Amino acid sequence: MVLISIHCSDQRAQSSETNKDNLPHIIIVGAGFGGLSAAKALGKCRARVTVIDRRNYHLFQPLLYQVATAGLSESDIAAPIRGILRDQANTTVLMGMVTGVDTERRRVHVDGRVISYDFLVLATGARHAYSDNDWEVFAPGLKKVEDATNMRAKILMAFERAEVTTDDNERRRLLTFVVVGGGPTGVELAGAMAELAKRALARDFRNIDPCQARIVLLQRGPRILPGFSETLSTFARTSLEKLGVEVQTGINVDQVDQDGAIVSGHSIEARTVIWAAGVMASPAGRWLAAERDAQGRVLVEPDLSAPEYPEVFVIGDTAGINNENGRRLPGIAPVANQQGHYVGKLIRGLIEGRARPGPFRYRHYGNMATIGRSAAVADFCGLHFKGLPAWILWGIAHIYFLIGLPRRGMGDRLLPTG
Amino acid sequence: MVLISIHCSDQRAQSSETNKDNLPHIIIVGAGFGGLSAAKALGKCRARVTVIDRRNYHLFQPLLYQVATAGLSESDIAAPIRGILRDQANTTVLMGMVTGVDTERRRVHVDGRVISYDFLVLATGARHAYSDNDWEVFAPGLKKVEDATNMRAKILMAFERAEVTTDDNERRRLLTFVVVGGGPTGVELAGAMAELAKRALARDFRNIDPCQARIVLLQRGPRILPGFSETLSTFARTSLEKLGVEVQTGINVDQVDQDGAIVSGHSIEARTVIWAAGVMASPAGRWLAAERDAQGRVLVEPDLSAPEYPEVFVIGDTAGINNENGRRLPGIAPVANQQGHYVGKLIRGLIEGRARPGPFRYRHYGNMATIGRSAAVADFCGLHFKGLPAWILWGIAHIYFLIGLPRRGMGDRLLPTG
Repeated sequence: MVLISIHCSDQRAQSSETNKDNLPHIIIVGAGFGGLSAAKALGKCRARVTVIDRRNYHLFQPLLYQVATAGLSESDIAAPIRGILRDQANTTVLMGMVTGVDTERRRVHVDGRVISYDFLVLATGARHAYSDNDWEVFAPGLKKVEDATNMRAKILMAFERAEVTTDDNERRRLLTFVVVGGGPTGVELAGAMAELAKRALARDFRNIDPCQARIVLLQRGPRILPGFSETLSTFARTSLEKLGVEVQTGINVDQVDQDGAIVSGHSIEARTVIWAAGVMASPAGRWLAAERDAQGRVLVEPDLSAPEYPEVFVIGDTAGINNENGRRLPGIAPVANQQGHYVGKLIRGLIEGRARPGPFRYRHYGNMATIGRSAAVADFCGLHFKGLPAWILWGIAHIYFLIGLPRRGMGDRLLPTG
Repeated sequence: MVLISIHCSDQRAQSSETNKDNLPHIIIVGAGFGGLSAAKALGKCRARVTVIDRRNYHLFQPLLYQVATAGLSESDIAAPIRGILRDQANTTVLMGMVTGVDTERRRVHVDGRVISYDFLVLATGARHAYSDNDWEVFAPGLKKVEDATNMRAKILMAFERAEVTTDDNERRRLLTFVVVGGGPTGVELAGAMAELAKRALARDFRNIDPCQARIVLLQRGPRILPGFSETLSTFARTSLEKLGVEVQTGINVDQVDQDGAIVSGHSIEARTVIWAAGVMASPAGRWLAAERDAQGRVLVEPDLSAPEYPEVFVIGDTAGINNENGRRLPGIAPVANQQGHYVGKLIRGLIEGRARPGPFRYRHYGNMATIGRSAAVADFCGLHFKGLPAWILWGIAHIYFLIGLPRRGMGDRLLPTG
């Protein structure tokens, strides 16, 4: 590992105009949880910080399933990046698409332009992944705003078409919804879809009864929410079943097409299949030509730097790193947040002449998932919660994060992604 | 005029299941202000009511300019039609596209299906109109949600592209915004764009100063807001100019293309031109093969029925009818609301055996327009207001209408229109 140390304290006496270009330049690619938290940690650093994202907004991904199930509007869970970083005078936001990194010359390619860096932070996230790529058309996943609004349109249109059709079989297919994957996203999606059908839409139709909608949650492993304790996992299953969700475990998906899914040998006819199973890291690993794991995550050094490039850092869903027990850190917001903060502080330390710190350590506070409006499960600081206490905890935690977004009074500035 | 009278009071003793199909069937096409208000007036009527719209939501069009200028989200000004009419047991909502009417057999064509009616209410609104149809591509108008979200994307992207470009002329073109038409929509749009540039975005960029954006409002006639008094019109102009909007009156638009507009012989280079001038009624008039005025509005009878078809009514922006002074009623929400209510009551009266009422009379309460966040003009019940009092009046009136929409707790169920 090479020690990088750039002193710029002696420049302070000069006018900020003259020495602006001499300041070290930090490029952060991606304004998700990781990228934003790195940018914030660099807010007071004597450096030029450039945040590049192909969207103009930060997205609160953990609530994306609420947009997909018509509970929230996309503008409720997104905030303009420029607004969030407005008061950080050393930071420029650039809306653009990064297509590659030249690690030798320390340059990033953005929309045909080339921008030099002294430090680079890659926080470009992940996409959903399929065992068979053709499935994406029939079983969309949930990562982007457009995924959620398309999914919402598909679900609502299924009810509209069921109301009109005179074919009983087609009506049944339209009112069958399959969710593949029993992790937090799948569980939250299935619960919210049950609420939508059995509560929000219950009295909206005249020819169909939305309460008759069949919602099937498929999990490959023996239990849903495998990241939680067995008690919470059982509680989640019971809560889902109370809402009318069919939970099937030990299920393998063999085939997905426009008529539904074939799972463990039997067929489920459905017009809506939703993918909440595996993810694949963004192509940042390819840009670096670095070693990656099966999910495409870059195998980073203990300080989250890329092997051989101590001035390049990879964080969040794109980074593959284990915790002290040798288990790979999951692709969740708290991991990205803590990694961003760690890397931001690390870079600031190097610029201010301090030595590189000890390895990154993730502090796990807990897991949470809601099941509809009335139930939730949480393990938090070693304690297990279920039912109302977990739901309140979930609410507080999400409100706590959401009020961090300066949405109020900023209107709706989400730009569609090309 | 033919007198229609259908008695169904003698059917009340029968079970509602058996006689449901014998009840008169009223089809309402369009769930804008006119259609919804007709449906509501028929809520207690012993009849089957079917509301057909190609969208699943009612749109509060007067605030569409706020969506276009990133002040509000589309879900703030729209509500699901099914939700609004949920408690009206006699009413079915059908999401579909009406393609024609067979007035002889009393049938409506919807997405390849044919539905019979006893009474028909056409409330299908209007679209913006151009002297040259090619202009629509370069100067989009503002009638649908998609118009507003596309306009918002175009405006915000102009700032994003201006931040990146190194070409001074291109930057100037990107930061020039032309609004064609000085009626309420044009005035409110120009004011809101000035607020967006000079306030909301003011500190969001590093290479450009959004306050330098040039916003030009073009009006063909001698003054903006010609429907208002001269004093209010002058006040509106001064308020716009205070916000930095260039108001040009007596201007003819000769040409619009991707580089801007040629107006009264001189050229304004601009990447964003917005159309807030004329409108053209929906094709309902063609469906009826009825006589229409130059804006495509059906020349209806004094009771808003179509000539020769006393069971067919045309209301709102699609109806051409004059007030007592011989002036054509404008295409605004209060006119549509009152016409819908009148026609709903009229049909209910006929079904309940009453005679046709006297002609429709529009009661004009006032005109209002806001100019940015701080100023507004209103003439209300013969009184003229400007500045803060008008702004408060505007706020109260809009909040009054918006709370009528059951949006809260309904989430976001807007479906995109194909």
